[in-house]
Amino acid sequence: MYELQMEVINKNLRLWLEEDVGMGDVTTMTTISKESRSKGIIHLKDNGIIAGVQIAEAVFAMVDPELEFEAKVQEGQAVSYGTIVAEVSGSTRSILLGERLALNLMQRMSGIATRTKQYVDALQGLPVRLVDTRKTTPGHRLLEKYAVRVGGGHNHRFGLYDAVMIKDNHIKGSGGIVEAIQSARSQIPHTMKIEIEVESMEQLELALSARPDIIMLDNMKPEQMRVAVARIKSQAPHILVEASGSITLETIKAVAEAGIDVISVGRLTYSVQALDISLDLNEQKGVQS
Amino acid sequence: MYELQMEVINKNLRLWLEEDVGMGDVTTMTTISKESRSKGIIHLKDNGIIAGVQIAEAVFAMVDPELEFEAKVQEGQAVSYGTIVAEVSGSTRSILLGERLALNLMQRMSGIATRTKQYVDALQGLPVRLVDTRKTTPGHRLLEKYAVRVGGGHNHRFGLYDAVMIKDNHIKGSGGIVEAIQSARSQIPHTMKIEIEVESMEQLELALSARPDIIMLDNMKPEQMRVAVARIKSQAPHILVEASGSITLETIKAVAEAGIDVISVGRLTYSVQALDISLDLNEQKGVQS
Amino acid sequence: MYELQMEVINKNLRLWLEEDVGMGDVTTMTTISKESRSKGIIHLKDNGIIAGVQIAEAVFAMVDPELEFEAKVQEGQAVSYGTIVAEVSGSTRSILLGERLALNLMQRMSGIATRTKQYVDALQGLPVRLVDTRKTTPGHRLLEKYAVRVGGGHNHRFGLYDAVMIKDNHIKGSGGIVEAIQSARSQIPHTMKIEIEVESMEQLELALSARPDIIMLDNMKPEQMRVAVARIKSQAPHILVEASGSITLETIKAVAEAGIDVISVGRLTYSVQALDISLDLNEQKGVQS
Amino acid sequence: MYELQMEVINKNLRLWLEEDVGMGDVTTMTTISKESRSKGIIHLKDNGIIAGVQIAEAVFAMVDPELEFEAKVQEGQAVSYGTIVAEVSGSTRSILLGERLALNLMQRMSGIATRTKQYVDALQGLPVRLVDTRKTTPGHRLLEKYAVRVGGGHNHRFGLYDAVMIKDNHIKGSGGIVEAIQSARSQIPHTMKIEIEVESMEQLELALSARPDIIMLDNMKPEQMRVAVARIKSQAPHILVEASGSITLETIKAVAEAGIDVISVGRLTYSVQALDISLDLNEQKGVQS
Amino acid sequence: MYELQMEVINKNLRLWLEEDVGMGDVTTMTTISKESRSKGIIHLKDNGIIAGVQIAEAVFAMVDPELEFEAKVQEGQAVSYGTIVAEVSGSTRSILLGERLALNLMQRMSGIATRTKQYVDALQGLPVRLVDTRKTTPGHRLLEKYAVRVGGGHNHRFGLYDAVMIKDNHIKGSGGIVEAIQSARSQIPHTMKIEIEVESMEQLELALSARPDIIMLDNMKPEQMRVAVARIKSQAPHILVEASGSITLETIKAVAEAGIDVISVGRLTYSVQALDISLDLNEQKGVQS
Amino acid sequence: MYELQMEVINKNLRLWLEEDVGMGDVTTMTTISKESRSKGIIHLKDNGIIAGVQIAEAVFAMVDPELEFEAKVQEGQAVSYGTIVAEVSGSTRSILLGERLALNLMQRMSGIATRTKQYVDALQGLPVRLVDTRKTTPGHRLLEKYAVRVGGGHNHRFGLYDAVMIKDNHIKGSGGIVEAIQSARSQIPHTMKIEIEVESMEQLELALSARPDIIMLDNMKPEQMRVAVARIKSQAPHILVEASGSITLETIKAVAEAGIDVISVGRLTYSVQALDISLDLNEQKGVQS
Repeated sequence: MYELQMEVINKNLRLWLEEDVGMGDVTTMTTISKESRSKGIIHLKDNGIIAGVQIAEAVFAMVDPELEFEAKVQEGQAVSYGTIVAEVSGSTRSILLGERLALNLMQRMSGIATRTKQYVDALQGLPVRLVDTRKTTPGHRLLEKYAVRVGGGHNHRFGLYDAVMIKDNHIKGSGGIVEAIQSARSQIPHTMKIEIEVESMEQLELALSARPDIIMLDNMKPEQMRVAVARIKSQAPHILVEASGSITLETIKAVAEAGIDVISVGRLTYSVQALDISLDLNEQKGVQS
Repeated sequence: MYELQMEVINKNLRLWLEEDVGMGDVTTMTTISKESRSKGIIHLKDNGIIAGVQIAEAVFAMVDPELEFEAKVQEGQAVSYGTIVAEVSGSTRSILLGERLALNLMQRMSGIATRTKQYVDALQGLPVRLVDTRKTTPGHRLLEKYAVRVGGGHNHRFGLYDAVMIKDNHIKGSGGIVEAIQSARSQIPHTMKIEIEVESMEQLELALSARPDIIMLDNMKPEQMRVAVARIKSQAPHILVEASGSITLETIKAVAEAGIDVISVGRLTYSVQALDISLDLNEQKGVQS
Repeated sequence: MYELQMEVINKNLRLWLEEDVGMGDVTTMTTISKESRSKGIIHLKDNGIIAGVQIAEAVFAMVDPELEFEAKVQEGQAVSYGTIVAEVSGSTRSILLGERLALNLMQRMSGIATRTKQYVDALQGLPVRLVDTRKTTPGHRLLEKYAVRVGGGHNHRFGLYDAVMIKDNHIKGSGGIVEAIQSARSQIPHTMKIEIEVESMEQLELALSARPDIIMLDNMKPEQMRVAVARIKSQAPHILVEASGSITLETIKAVAEAGIDVISVGRLTYSVQALDISLDLNEQKGVQS
Repeated sequence: MYELQMEVINKNLRLWLEEDVGMGDVTTMTTISKESRSKGIIHLKDNGIIAGVQIAEAVFAMVDPELEFEAKVQEGQAVSYGTIVAEVSGSTRSILLGERLALNLMQRMSGIATRTKQYVDALQGLPVRLVDTRKTTPGHRLLEKYAVRVGGGHNHRFGLYDAVMIKDNHIKGSGGIVEAIQSARSQIPHTMKIEIEVESMEQLELALSARPDIIMLDNMKPEQMRVAVARIKSQAPHILVEASGSITLETIKAVAEAGIDVISVGRLTYSVQALDISLDLNEQKGVQS
Repeated sequence: MYELQMEVINKNLRLWLEEDVGMGDVTTMTTISKESRSKGIIHLKDNGIIAGVQIAEAVFAMVDPELEFEAKVQEGQAVSYGTIVAEVSGSTRSILLGERLALNLMQRMSGIATRTKQYVDALQGLPVRLVDTRKTTPGHRLLEKYAVRVGGGHNHRFGLYDAVMIKDNHIKGSGGIVEAIQSARSQIPHTMKIEIEVESMEQLELALSARPDIIMLDNMKPEQMRVAVARIKSQAPHILVEASGSITLETIKAVAEAGIDVISVGRLTYSVQALDISLDLNEQKGVQS
Repeated sequence: MYELQMEVINKNLRLWLEEDVGMGDVTTMTTISKESRSKGIIHLKDNGIIAGVQIAEAVFAMVDPELEFEAKVQEGQAVSYGTIVAEVSGSTRSILLGERLALNLMQRMSGIATRTKQYVDALQGLPVRLVDTRKTTPGHRLLEKYAVRVGGGHNHRFGLYDAVMIKDNHIKGSGGIVEAIQSARSQIPHTMKIEIEVESMEQLELALSARPDIIMLDNMKPEQMRVAVARIKSQAPHILVEASGSITLETIKAVAEAGIDVISVGRLTYSVQALDISLDLNEQKGVQS
């Protein structure tokens, strides 16, 4: 699986730690001795797919490079109530300082991986790819898109910069589907793809005539999609067909069976149901002097 | 209501825009003319409480100071499918550039305000305050705590820096409840409060003897809470009593009726159910040359 | 004692090094060989209380992680002319690069600790706490408040964000003392205290009726304070009483004897008399090639 | 007078505001209405030389670009108890938010200008220049060196990067005075000066033989200085002679009369005695709703 | 033409100004009066294609928002010795402060546009696209790729993040051409293209079998290219063919005539020959007081 | 030689890496196994003087501190086609991630050192110093000035902040040559030099009368220079004489023979002809799973 480039993440982790710690953790600094050493056990209080273990590790390493972190599960593993995810040992102060951020991130990422896995399972055996959207939490895009991969999904584009995606509003603003595709193609790098969103067979014909790389069928019914797919593949088999719009766990299989190549589901990252994960200290050495 | 200090938010908005835009919005720059002008209508596709309108305004102002933004609703107003939240007019490119970030933020904030309002309504008429926790999305704490206020709730501390909160793990690490409270009080500013978490009547007695400012009853049943509240108020009426732990919309009224002053609910900001909000362009002037 | 959270300080240290070093230390780079190794002896040319040894260590570690720093005194120790504070060994260039910043900080922090100790000594045996104010050097607040603690004092709030402090100007702007306290209390987190400044017995009565957490008696004479303290304690013994305004080493004992809980003295951090500390190289190996 | 390049200062002002404001000014936001408008009068409670009026203006402009700031005195003007320095009008919240930082900076800068003026006055009529050192407050070097100029002084180098300054420690590390000067001269830009510190006539002869641009006589008595100056000027009249080390208001005139060109005094910026400056609100419009 | 997203550029401009200005422009601040007003004429001392006029404008606007900048030429226009590019009016200090950075950038960008135009002219009438590479000056990638567009060229990918480009070193590290393409395709977003570099007909056959989006013929002779193009287009006409490696102004036409779709030339941005552009002040008002 | 202060450079290296890597290196992450280990051989495909080896090392250390970097040549060494500059061993992903930035920088710096060496060689045996100008690539000034030193040249001032340089435009704006020099001298630190540019003997006389530290003869012919030098040295032998303006490899010797002390050549850093340097992986261990 395509992993996270951690160097890119660390800048955010630092800002997020600052948000929580501010000018200092007054509780820990005034109740826990500098010398106190503990082991923190990170464990599940829920069932699902774990994601973000390495992010938790990075948080603790940023707080205190001398903490020892031992992962007990693999990214993407199915976990259940009571599973120990990881153990972190060292300065009690440092463990408690990093606790909230590490848990907040792992909980959210695991929630995304868990939901993604449900959709992926619903598509089992079908030649289709489940992808996310740009409806991610601001500041968390790379982490959330990674969590989708951990759950067995794939990613749509990463931002406004790495692919052309012509939607309804762009079509209105550019004089039409054909004009928009041609205008984009004449200006973008040849290394970049063009995707266009169509809502009807009329739009599909226009789109096909301008040969985009991907055609997205927006809010169509499965039977419409089947017709559209047939038309596209008959004309240009290398064009990918994507479906989008109000697709749920109940309807996704029918969409896939219409011959779609890629299904994008905003709900993977939008309205995340976090997984409940806790940290308990179970050993303590040293006392506050 | 205690408003957001916007200067503090803008640094995050800038980072979040960069996350989405990267080296540029290739679609807009290659399909929409620089001269094109439009009006974007931001409208609801859901029911709930709106929050974050001024944040959306700040996003568009950051993208392009010449955009005109007109709010059509008040923060905290109940809105329903079809309600127009705001209109933004000016460069089509600029509107489309800011669209996703503005919507992502308003959707999440409105989701939090909406859920908060449900809990607040369940407590109507009772002398109790509903508050959030530190289980917020990393990087979004100020926005999410503000959304709780918009929904009628109040805030718990803002981070590790603005109040002492002695939990189970701190008690273990400091030699006991009394020792932890005394150690903290002797070191922190006299302007700062101390809250302690207790799980039993034995712990409560120890806590009371050390006179914290707030006692949090963790995971107790309402009948236990009633006894605890009576004991605390008989000893030191100025001590605030907070309840926490697995409190749901179903159980919250019973908790409040136990005489609790403050109820903290992690779920207000954790596992947010975003409100569905869209932007449509409805006027266009100028064409791509 | 409540220590510094060093992670929070390092960002400032980096900026301050850049201020001094700019594009490079032209003297050291052109007169001292890269291979030259020395030991720098940091010693006192003054008498007082030492503070900031760990900050000096952090400066040298930032300049060159291979420097070895050995503290010879404890934070808060009384030191006198000739006392060796620390030794730092390694690259001569690195020692000289960090010298000025390390000394500037330690000199200032020790000056604050020294002055604080004088006030603390004047209060010896009295049940009162000496605290600082927000009249700190911009950018140095955490360091200066820490130096106050090293000298035996305590801290007032850390900034505008961690406690409500209603002063004369706020009273004017909010319709009155009672209104200001009530307005604040209804909006701030329950974890936050409210302090109000009063200048007369009339204001005191108003303040008392609204039950703030702390009442600050501004610029009163000791005899007035005694009356005010008695009144406050008779009504609400848990309210802390703070005295402020033109309190000097000569008058502070009388203030404390009026029954005051907390005395705030701007002069602890304002108009610092720095302690004179020097660094001498006493060993040199390697020559400029 | 050589003014401040304000663009360079604003980055620091922003960090300093953040230090004080953190996640928000809880007092102002909960007691003062957003609509309230006031005028703040900034006035003296001390006597001295004013410096930093434009910095105060920049602070208020950063807090709120709509505040109107009107200076009532000139930089460098002698002011006394009761003098109005400036008036700032607009949002009460904004005025109170910027108050502390604006005052802290002006107080410190005016303290430096005031002390500098005392030394300058002691040198009146003598052909000598009074300069500062690198013993400035970390983060405040440009402001403090500017305040020295406001007080009638001049500046020594700005940092380690803009002139070579060979001190005792460099001489030890480079094999001798002549070697150090030659090594530096062969490597630095021809646009940069070399200053060397000497403590004896033997060192002076060595220094002279290598033709530095400036010779600093360290801790010499006036009669020694007179001999040294005569020797230097007889050999190379364009070499500037600087005196340094334990020079006080009492001794400075004698130093100058020894024929010295430049006298550097660390005390100008080290151990600053701040000038007492206050802000009072004298008009208020609008109330907290 | 696909324009620059200026918001993305401003952060760099700020850093670059700081690099030049440091703690202040000592010459301007001490020789030019604050009140002095001038007009700066920016003119050519060379022949070529102008690029970067809006960047110069942005530099001056950053230095001083009150400067008036008037462009006298269009981006991409052919200019010659004596052509006036732009006039900038306002504070003399501000004009001189921004001069060097504005000129340095425009000179380099115009140099790139000029060279690009030479290559584009050599390809006139041929159905081929000239593109750049990642051999850009660190920190200047967006500006240099924009300058290529101004000169009539197109861009290759913007960085490591927006397209897969499998080179020799990746092939070695991944077990072969087919394995590398398949491994990449299974992991990347479906919105991203895969380009592969081949050096021989054997490699080409392997590549073709795995259906990349772009095949780059590395260092082949035109006659080899002609064979390769024919083979590719017979198998998969939608695959783009790119040529690269030691292509010069002399050889580029022959390459294009081999049927190539895209020719990439590192030399467009590598070893830039800057265009000579100067700024002269021709009016002055106000004198140094 | 005066070395680079690497701490100052690292901030730029980080920004430049981000520019190239963005949200991640999609090619390496999807084609090369995390476990793969290689050795990269950095070798010349050109002839010249090498510079920037330690910068390449710093780039690889920033990408991955576990990479081992072994330099095979000395900074400033003459190298030719095939020379191995360095070897870097460790994670294949990390080597490929840093490759482009490391090479881009070394190529440019070596190009500058190579050109500088040509000019230095042309001056061999003459008592003159070759220096650069401020016509450097924005963001690269320290690196490019260092490369000039590697090539045997010296540096002019580093920016607008470390020396006064009065040019034609300043003379116009300040009322004349004498006025400009006097105004600057009265305000700048005594540690800073003043250089003035003159274009005629009339200007030279004015300049001489005000005793600057350096006189720059702009665009004069060698015979004019000879007269000017004689005049300056007869009046004030310690004033340095610099020549500038359209000096080429062909003319530089004649300029030097006119008795000039310093010759500044913009072309050293402007229009750099980069040296061609490549990285090849020659060992691979571990495969993509």
